[in-house]
Amino acid sequence: MSDPRAAVPAVPVLAARAAELDAADELASCRKLFALEPDAVYLDGNSLGALPRNVPERVQDVITRQWGELRIRSWDESGWWTAPERIGDRIAPLVGAGQGRIVVGDSTSVNVFKALMGAVRLLDPADPARDEIVVDATTFPTDGYIARSVARMTGMPLVPVDPAELPGSLGPRTAVVLVNHVDFRTGRLHDLPGLTAAVHEAGGLAVWDLCHSAGALPVGLDEHGVDLAVGCTYKFLNGGPGSPAFLYVAERHQERFDSPLPGWNSHADPFAMAQDFTAAEGAVRGRVGTPDILSMLALEAALDVWDGVSIDAVRAKSLALTDFFLECVTAYAPADRVSSTTPAAHAERGSQVALRCAEAPAVMAALIERGVVGDLRRPDVLRFGFTPLYVGFADAERAARTLGEVLREIPAAG
Amino acid sequence: MSDPRAAVPAVPVLAARAAELDAADELASCRKLFALEPDAVYLDGNSLGALPRNVPERVQDVITRQWGELRIRSWDESGWWTAPERIGDRIAPLVGAGQGRIVVGDSTSVNVFKALMGAVRLLDPADPARDEIVVDATTFPTDGYIARSVARMTGMPLVPVDPAELPGSLGPRTAVVLVNHVDFRTGRLHDLPGLTAAVHEAGGLAVWDLCHSAGALPVGLDEHGVDLAVGCTYKFLNGGPGSPAFLYVAERHQERFDSPLPGWNSHADPFAMAQDFTAAEGAVRGRVGTPDILSMLALEAALDVWDGVSIDAVRAKSLALTDFFLECVTAYAPADRVSSTTPAAHAERGSQVALRCAEAPAVMAALIERGVVGDLRRPDVLRFGFTPLYVGFADAERAARTLGEVLREIPAAG
Repeated sequence: MSDPRAAVPAVPVLAARAAELDAADELASCRKLFALEPDAVYLDGNSLGALPRNVPERVQDVITRQWGELRIRSWDESGWWTAPERIGDRIAPLVGAGQGRIVVGDSTSVNVFKALMGAVRLLDPADPARDEIVVDATTFPTDGYIARSVARMTGMPLVPVDPAELPGSLGPRTAVVLVNHVDFRTGRLHDLPGLTAAVHEAGGLAVWDLCHSAGALPVGLDEHGVDLAVGCTYKFLNGGPGSPAFLYVAERHQERFDSPLPGWNSHADPFAMAQDFTAAEGAVRGRVGTPDILSMLALEAALDVWDGVSIDAVRAKSLALTDFFLECVTAYAPADRVSSTTPAAHAERGSQVALRCAEAPAVMAALIERGVVGDLRRPDVLRFGFTPLYVGFADAERAARTLGEVLREIPAAG
Repeated sequence: MSDPRAAVPAVPVLAARAAELDAADELASCRKLFALEPDAVYLDGNSLGALPRNVPERVQDVITRQWGELRIRSWDESGWWTAPERIGDRIAPLVGAGQGRIVVGDSTSVNVFKALMGAVRLLDPADPARDEIVVDATTFPTDGYIARSVARMTGMPLVPVDPAELPGSLGPRTAVVLVNHVDFRTGRLHDLPGLTAAVHEAGGLAVWDLCHSAGALPVGLDEHGVDLAVGCTYKFLNGGPGSPAFLYVAERHQERFDSPLPGWNSHADPFAMAQDFTAAEGAVRGRVGTPDILSMLALEAALDVWDGVSIDAVRAKSLALTDFFLECVTAYAPADRVSSTTPAAHAERGSQVALRCAEAPAVMAALIERGVVGDLRRPDVLRFGFTPLYVGFADAERAARTLGEVLREIPAAG
């Protein structure tokens, strides 16, 4: 009897396909821009993106020269003061936004607060019956917590709805709808153009959370008429741990956008230090307090990896990678041990694969031990993020093969 | 006739006094912990603290090893997840707070929002007539803007009051009072123990902004019964440009503290990813979203300079420095050109000197040109911050002497 702990041999046809796909991959050369050991299979870039190689030197310059030597002068001379809107303009093309509509700063949660409260204030005061804040019931929890807080502060009812049932639950009471573009558990991609249109049809405003889509797929914020959006920069945008989030306000709403956090950085003339608040024009109005420059400029450096990269090419590779990984999982993993909750249809898939597995905690620990890094969402979800800039097809094959190996060693529960 | 542009010679007695005071200064050895050229006279540490020498190497390790190699594992293995409360505990002794009462994260403005809205929610609901939010009319503008936003959201009246008139304006309608510990323009130190007691006497809650006192003088948050407080870490705490701010909630209020920004990081079990929000216990409840780790850990490294430093010694040196600087200004600067708006009484003085000067913009530009870096607050205030860890008495003498020189060169307006 063969040793069940022996490494699972590669299925030759899959290994060959991986090699072919990698050879034909126009984004393959991007991997060298990241600090990754040659054998690293890092499938957790949907949680924390890998380090772009140019970041350490840039941050060192920010610290030792800009802060250490120029000190206070760097607010002007090193461009610190304008970084939030400058970096917003770098992110804009990746999510289909024009220049001057995105500002970077604060956490995603704080930006969800600005966006939702800002959306409520854009509502027509002559239509008080339009009072429901609808929130994606499957969204990342922080969105729901903040939405509940906004509902509490405004006295508006909060209505959690599964995105699949969203069109049927919209109506004359629909005020603001907050949806996550990609479900963080299953990797399901929601129909941003269709749902945005449905929300508008009902007379409401659509706010999107792009944490799992910015840098992973085309979003088309302007094109699809999204009202407001927020997103994270430390996943597919590789900005570093806890790098600042971003806020998008559609051009047609900028003039009336009324931030609930009118800090001095959103004042039209911050250094007048006036007692009265006069809001700045444009994206700057979404700023609050002094920006965290070290994290902000690390993100700016990290965005260099996108130079010359087409987000359409990223999307095409992402779908090919997740298709291929699912095919490899079918080949290597015992069918009764894992099941994918990620939609098979491309139009419904983000850039991750989620596998249900009763022994998920032990399985993910063993995978990480063997250099295949994904993550666990309790109680039973194995998540594998595919970041096309630095993950290849051979990585996908190895990850699935290692998963097969691990599942043969860890006994099935019950 | 002597050339008015010739350098002003040092007054021998002042130069000698400076040398004596520096020789006797127990904190003099701290300067070598900072990246400062030997001849730098940096009097803007009340705006952006100088770079502690240990920060670049620490941040490099955070980027290249913790992020670059350990990647996602660093959230646990490198202590990223617990950094906000761990660093809060490092700041606590500097402001007289016990352990577990301070959390670091977000900007000062965002923390003012948490503190004010949190204070409103601590009020006795059986006393709805207690409805006034009183705000220091001289405070740094962002505090006033955010206070107005809280007043708008809660429907409570906002009452701006000069701190000097505060005791007389308190009464049965006083709900929450937000005061800045040190006036950012004049450097006036407000009476935190006395005003806090007066607010309590009136039945209200006292919220203090410590941006210009944390790291400059003893605050005694616990001792004086302050209810909530916020503070900045990039001034006297040298955390770096835009480093995260902090929030203090008195122990007696922690259990009822009800954050208006209940992000997933303030959940009792964040990784349960539960739809329902259950607030964490203690200081963690003040967290919101994912912390900005690069800025946060730069701050943590920067706090090393405080090891073994007594805040009482810092205060004693600060007062001696500002006394001596004012004495030197009197000796070197034409009396009709500048006038101090910083109180002469020690009990009313923070750690900066503010001089009114009709030609302030040109004068400050010329000072900076000659290596004496202070800053300007429009239209006519020259600000000189004295950070006892790296500013010495010879620096104070040189700054005053250079000011005298510059004033002789720049014609008096009008």
